[in-house]
Amino acid sequence: MTKGIKIATIGGGSSYTPELVEGFIKRYNEFPVKELWLVDIEEGKEKLEIVGNFTKRMIEKAGLPIEVHLTFDRKAALKGADFVTTQFRVGGLDARAKDERIPVKYGVLGQETNGPGGLFKGLRTIPVILDITKDMEELCPNAWLINFTNPAGMVTEAVLRYSNIKKVVGLCNVPIGMEMGIAKLLDVDHSRVHIDFAGLNHMVYGLDVYLDGVSVKDEVMQKLSDPENSSFVKNIEGIGWEPEFIQSLNALTCPYHMYYYKSKEMLDKTIESSKTEGTRAEVVQQLENDLFELYKDPNLDIKPPQLEERGGAYYSDAAVRLITSIYNDKRDIQPVNTMNRGAIPSIPDESAVEISCVITKDGPIPLAMGDLPVATRGLVQQIKSFERISAEAAVTGDYNKAVLALTINPLTPSDATAKQIVDEMMEAHKEHLPQFQEDKVTVN
Amino acid sequence: MTKGIKIATIGGGSSYTPELVEGFIKRYNEFPVKELWLVDIEEGKEKLEIVGNFTKRMIEKAGLPIEVHLTFDRKAALKGADFVTTQFRVGGLDARAKDERIPVKYGVLGQETNGPGGLFKGLRTIPVILDITKDMEELCPNAWLINFTNPAGMVTEAVLRYSNIKKVVGLCNVPIGMEMGIAKLLDVDHSRVHIDFAGLNHMVYGLDVYLDGVSVKDEVMQKLSDPENSSFVKNIEGIGWEPEFIQSLNALTCPYHMYYYKSKEMLDKTIESSKTEGTRAEVVQQLENDLFELYKDPNLDIKPPQLEERGGAYYSDAAVRLITSIYNDKRDIQPVNTMNRGAIPSIPDESAVEISCVITKDGPIPLAMGDLPVATRGLVQQIKSFERISAEAAVTGDYNKAVLALTINPLTPSDATAKQIVDEMMEAHKEHLPQFQEDKVTVN
Amino acid sequence: MTKGIKIATIGGGSSYTPELVEGFIKRYNEFPVKELWLVDIEEGKEKLEIVGNFTKRMIEKAGLPIEVHLTFDRKAALKGADFVTTQFRVGGLDARAKDERIPVKYGVLGQETNGPGGLFKGLRTIPVILDITKDMEELCPNAWLINFTNPAGMVTEAVLRYSNIKKVVGLCNVPIGMEMGIAKLLDVDHSRVHIDFAGLNHMVYGLDVYLDGVSVKDEVMQKLSDPENSSFVKNIEGIGWEPEFIQSLNALTCPYHMYYYKSKEMLDKTIESSKTEGTRAEVVQQLENDLFELYKDPNLDIKPPQLEERGGAYYSDAAVRLITSIYNDKRDIQPVNTMNRGAIPSIPDESAVEISCVITKDGPIPLAMGDLPVATRGLVQQIKSFERISAEAAVTGDYNKAVLALTINPLTPSDATAKQIVDEMMEAHKEHLPQFQEDKVTVN
Amino acid sequence: MTKGIKIATIGGGSSYTPELVEGFIKRYNEFPVKELWLVDIEEGKEKLEIVGNFTKRMIEKAGLPIEVHLTFDRKAALKGADFVTTQFRVGGLDARAKDERIPVKYGVLGQETNGPGGLFKGLRTIPVILDITKDMEELCPNAWLINFTNPAGMVTEAVLRYSNIKKVVGLCNVPIGMEMGIAKLLDVDHSRVHIDFAGLNHMVYGLDVYLDGVSVKDEVMQKLSDPENSSFVKNIEGIGWEPEFIQSLNALTCPYHMYYYKSKEMLDKTIESSKTEGTRAEVVQQLENDLFELYKDPNLDIKPPQLEERGGAYYSDAAVRLITSIYNDKRDIQPVNTMNRGAIPSIPDESAVEISCVITKDGPIPLAMGDLPVATRGLVQQIKSFERISAEAAVTGDYNKAVLALTINPLTPSDATAKQIVDEMMEAHKEHLPQFQEDKVTVN
Repeated sequence: MTKGIKIATIGGGSSYTPELVEGFIKRYNEFPVKELWLVDIEEGKEKLEIVGNFTKRMIEKAGLPIEVHLTFDRKAALKGADFVTTQFRVGGLDARAKDERIPVKYGVLGQETNGPGGLFKGLRTIPVILDITKDMEELCPNAWLINFTNPAGMVTEAVLRYSNIKKVVGLCNVPIGMEMGIAKLLDVDHSRVHIDFAGLNHMVYGLDVYLDGVSVKDEVMQKLSDPENSSFVKNIEGIGWEPEFIQSLNALTCPYHMYYYKSKEMLDKTIESSKTEGTRAEVVQQLENDLFELYKDPNLDIKPPQLEERGGAYYSDAAVRLITSIYNDKRDIQPVNTMNRGAIPSIPDESAVEISCVITKDGPIPLAMGDLPVATRGLVQQIKSFERISAEAAVTGDYNKAVLALTINPLTPSDATAKQIVDEMMEAHKEHLPQFQEDKVTVN
Repeated sequence: MTKGIKIATIGGGSSYTPELVEGFIKRYNEFPVKELWLVDIEEGKEKLEIVGNFTKRMIEKAGLPIEVHLTFDRKAALKGADFVTTQFRVGGLDARAKDERIPVKYGVLGQETNGPGGLFKGLRTIPVILDITKDMEELCPNAWLINFTNPAGMVTEAVLRYSNIKKVVGLCNVPIGMEMGIAKLLDVDHSRVHIDFAGLNHMVYGLDVYLDGVSVKDEVMQKLSDPENSSFVKNIEGIGWEPEFIQSLNALTCPYHMYYYKSKEMLDKTIESSKTEGTRAEVVQQLENDLFELYKDPNLDIKPPQLEERGGAYYSDAAVRLITSIYNDKRDIQPVNTMNRGAIPSIPDESAVEISCVITKDGPIPLAMGDLPVATRGLVQQIKSFERISAEAAVTGDYNKAVLALTINPLTPSDATAKQIVDEMMEAHKEHLPQFQEDKVTVN
Repeated sequence: MTKGIKIATIGGGSSYTPELVEGFIKRYNEFPVKELWLVDIEEGKEKLEIVGNFTKRMIEKAGLPIEVHLTFDRKAALKGADFVTTQFRVGGLDARAKDERIPVKYGVLGQETNGPGGLFKGLRTIPVILDITKDMEELCPNAWLINFTNPAGMVTEAVLRYSNIKKVVGLCNVPIGMEMGIAKLLDVDHSRVHIDFAGLNHMVYGLDVYLDGVSVKDEVMQKLSDPENSSFVKNIEGIGWEPEFIQSLNALTCPYHMYYYKSKEMLDKTIESSKTEGTRAEVVQQLENDLFELYKDPNLDIKPPQLEERGGAYYSDAAVRLITSIYNDKRDIQPVNTMNRGAIPSIPDESAVEISCVITKDGPIPLAMGDLPVATRGLVQQIKSFERISAEAAVTGDYNKAVLALTINPLTPSDATAKQIVDEMMEAHKEHLPQFQEDKVTVN
Repeated sequence: MTKGIKIATIGGGSSYTPELVEGFIKRYNEFPVKELWLVDIEEGKEKLEIVGNFTKRMIEKAGLPIEVHLTFDRKAALKGADFVTTQFRVGGLDARAKDERIPVKYGVLGQETNGPGGLFKGLRTIPVILDITKDMEELCPNAWLINFTNPAGMVTEAVLRYSNIKKVVGLCNVPIGMEMGIAKLLDVDHSRVHIDFAGLNHMVYGLDVYLDGVSVKDEVMQKLSDPENSSFVKNIEGIGWEPEFIQSLNALTCPYHMYYYKSKEMLDKTIESSKTEGTRAEVVQQLENDLFELYKDPNLDIKPPQLEERGGAYYSDAAVRLITSIYNDKRDIQPVNTMNRGAIPSIPDESAVEISCVITKDGPIPLAMGDLPVATRGLVQQIKSFERISAEAAVTGDYNKAVLALTINPLTPSDATAKQIVDEMMEAHKEHLPQFQEDKVTVN
């Protein structure tokens, strides 16, 4: 890399980009980026320019020699890149709004990464990611692909199974958010808290939690039995766990567990809030509009605090911390989505898991902490089956597999409902699901 | 066994006993029973006498030298037994009615072996089974325990993990019923159909199906896509699968899969029928009353056809076929509940599974058919986790574990609902749940 | 198969063919062969004609309508075949003599299926087998390949890993010989003895042994502690086990275990007998010459008793029993070489193992008997590693891999000795090792 | 630990103790020892005093407030200890001399941790270690047991399986020596080299090797093909690997692999050197005598350079680095012997392995690097079987199991030889093998 580090960010016009840029600025000493290429599609031209100009101001303010390139030419961006980050959203927030609105009509939770929304976000995203990996094979075969695009677990599974790119890591801010939340709960600085993570993306458990290296799990489980304390991450408001449940589960939950262990309440809440404040997509659209207004301000040259409200808090930290550790072979421990390699015995070796790993120049090595607690194994296995069948449907365009994937998802009440939702969503998203249009597989 | 074969049947006053007796009579040539001990509790005196006398008439009619003993003294019955069969129901049909009625009030399926009903039937039954195994250790350590008592998977798991009796087989009429159903679907004699079974009790899949040794899976899957054909077993009326779902699942389902892949419809149906025809327990109570009226008839000396309506069709066949194969070391293939021993790689080696086995004098040896299809793994793992935590709660009397078990069950919509149901059912069944009374474990 | 059963026997001019023919005659009622194609290479013309004519006389004598075809045209024989049996020997007994002579010069056991001999027989045989499977894909894709050619385990591993033919079974007469031997030891008829087999080809253990379905393992282990009784199969003369060893091993050994648990004595014996009576190849050559003299006799029309001296006793039984069970979907239990599918947990799922299986129309399904006894696991794993690396060398022609395979074999005392033996044997067998000639991989 | 850190060193009179003391002195800042208890048996009084006084001078010279206690009272030393280190030798160097001398008479390698020597050192050591763990349960249940006593893998296996102490780590200087050796080979500083280790104690492989975080495995494998470079650790003089072998093995070997992949040469060499320079025990005895002469010098107050000749180079580094990382929850990566927990899939989860681990306050967590290379799996499995059966023999005093363990060891040529060696060594070591005296298990 004597030529200097080149970063290609696919979906560069995202409102999250300033998070990433702030991270590169902060860690410039140990990770001196030379070129940052922000790539987007033509439809995103305006956003790309706003974000790109803001990025340039941030870098200028920091006084660093990082070149910023804005482009619609993905291949030019990928050529010779050292790290490729992906944060695009196929179909934009409009698509998300559909993911959230349609299922609710059938009495099923509408959410962007779980249930029908997760399935369809995967169906839209996976073909695009696999296109990118094909370009990478040719243009930057040694680069690392750091994927932030949701559903990150399903996307990582798809890249591991259906591409030739093995240097892929899926990244999520949920684990770091859990550590932040626990730190707040204990009223200590984040740096003193460490959690042993294992599970899947948005389905990750904390198997143990340490303060200054000493397990404080009992104390934390006790605190979590207090309904006031059950939620850690901003974008899912807390409803408390039943003390009996969380005590005997004896593992830290992530915010998305609410959808599974409190399906009824979350469904009611989603229906209610979609009536009052609109879907999350609509709320986020407003936040995004506000953010882009801020970003346009030619005097703004640091990340505005409002960005944290957007839901991506800590992404900067998580992402740049990961990239820096790979670059410098730091061998520190971070939770990421990577190939299981036997670490969770009841999950196939070659599947993606979200787990505490040692981060090396050759990528993450999972820690072998033994199998998951018995009570958590079923749900994890179920989501893994859902991810695998969904990824298969995304790659093959097999309509029946899409129905199967949704039927086996724990949020779906029936194969008939699954089919109805798939049908309406296939139609609603058809522009972004070309694989299902051409060779539609039918029940013969 | 030169002394002659001795059978001890715990719950001998059951209306099913004539099924078993008919089986012993039919197979007397290869399995010459000398003593049949029907054991029951004093509260069941009347039923035991009715069934016992009818049994004696059946044997007399058959002209066989089988001694029938009726007793309340379990130890006397177990002493020196060769096979112990268990078919008791703790709390009787009244308890079942509660298992069915209470959950429905909370919008949860009420059913005797699934969800809350399965949990509470397990909590009531497991301590009694473990008492029996303790007696067996002392009185008939070489006997085989053939358990028909539901939930058979959870009970077998509990015996394998918490007793010293390793010669245990759990038996269910669902697999044989699936073979019968497929035979009917294909309009051929049952003896020509063979299914490769794998999964858990009431959660078993047919991985392949053969007619005269040739796979006819494609044809069968096609037929099952026709909603008319989706149900095989009498006691669950068919609602058809979505063709897309069943085709891509590409495995035979068992009737209980309806509760999981059609939760909504089954819940609606249960609520509806509990309003019109009463719960299943109430329906069964009436059937039982009618049966006992028939059994009383001193002229009745063969199994009456009405017994098949009761739901236990083929039990005779399944049970006596199993016992006869053990006794004669037949090494034929039968689906039973036994220790996994690696046959299903994603289930622990020492857990109970329901799987096609070779039946030998040393018991069943599972066939290694490779891991379950991806789409089925999640649900199976989830029910196995439910069974394990339920069994642990039954043994320890840990109230929190009972809440946990119910929360992780796929039929339960929320930890809060789980707790409400557990609380009401604990109270309703308290007479039969002594382990939760004395040292109630509480959240501190 | 309405057209009638067609068998293609590759290496049809083998002295073993009459064994097979006798089997087909005996079981004609349940397995009515219509065409038997004996294929050989032109160099084997004389033998093929002798065996072929003898075969015709046997069938005529039996009065059966089986057509016998003699041919050098393998493709014609394979076209539309239902079963393909392979019993050829690349390089003939001359090659075997080299496998036996050369290693001894370096103080290493020379034997046709173990150590250097096993490696080189594999290197010669695997490319030919893979050629056959390629023809089968095209000419008889639904046929079963029943391989008798040694080293049967390595060959089966190679077919499973490097061909598209999945319907393959490796067959050996060692397990049936062990059952015969135990029957003799117990002085009972063979049909009353059953052994649970698990391990690898020529490295198979009896985990339990039954007489009329009752375990008699303790009695058998006791008898085996008597040095008189330690050997069961004709072609390896017995030297007794140390009683302490065999008692604590607590598993039945196969004759080839002598090479590993008594390496020193077997080496000494081999050296000694190669000086006095010649190598086994030379002894066998004489036996073969005598057999072919017999076969020429136009009055001979039944299998002569001398054939059993040849070492292939029970092949007829084993082979035709297997084929008949596949054909008739008998679902009886037989020990064969097949894909592990999880049955032995410490061996990869997709590797070949020799294990008791249920034989169905879809092939063998291994019995899940749990992992091997601890004391046996190491040796089995070592031979499996040897088989896998050898197969890889055979397919790739990688000279270094051949040295590696031999070095990790437990009979080889050193990497330097391994290299010396490989070098001399590569030269000696070069005519039959084309894959190592063209693109010789060298240490750069 | 507000009371200050207490260390109990069992076998405190060992010549290695100054290594350990130097380590404690160097790392005092991050690991402030308050009390160091050197325990020995009465027979070792003179050595304990010499070493103890030298220790006191070293600490005084360093100006640190560490209290040194010398005692024969193990219980007093253990009471309230934070770390217990074990470095004793049951039977002393005399016993080692027997381990080395006796097997050679039977043509088998005599070595202290491999083959017969490893077995008998295990049989003598394991009962003593299990006594220590029983004391620890009572006197310091929260202490970490850091075992240096060989055979470290077998001893760790025994503690994991047969004691209630779960906080145990086995430590060896072989991995650190390999890193040092590679650093020398590459002519770079040790701190820049990192190896991914996996395998068993004295049977550990380097799966990859990095210089400044970049894999240099290809370069290193190339260099290792040069016979000059094959040996890294002082106490086994190098004989080069065959280039073909090491290239295709494609993993770093440890020095003890010489015994297995060059058995013949190592045996010849051992026989030769035992004739000329005496056994290693005799050589070491002389070194020890010289060392103790040095230690007596009242002016000596730093570790003398001659100690490195003794063979324990880097122990100080390895041991104190480990203890310091546990104490400070450093989460750095070190190779140690610990419970597998799924990290090497073909080894049982609960067995001891030697593997790169993250070192935390709760002990080592193995890295999941996937299964071992195929070519190495057999030998590793074989040594693991040997360790397990040996440990079982040590605990039960089952003579037959000792014969079995030795027979399955790859260095033993025959069950008969195994028995002869076991018999002579049982007699020679009988003083230290009480478990085999009282209830000698015999073949009945």
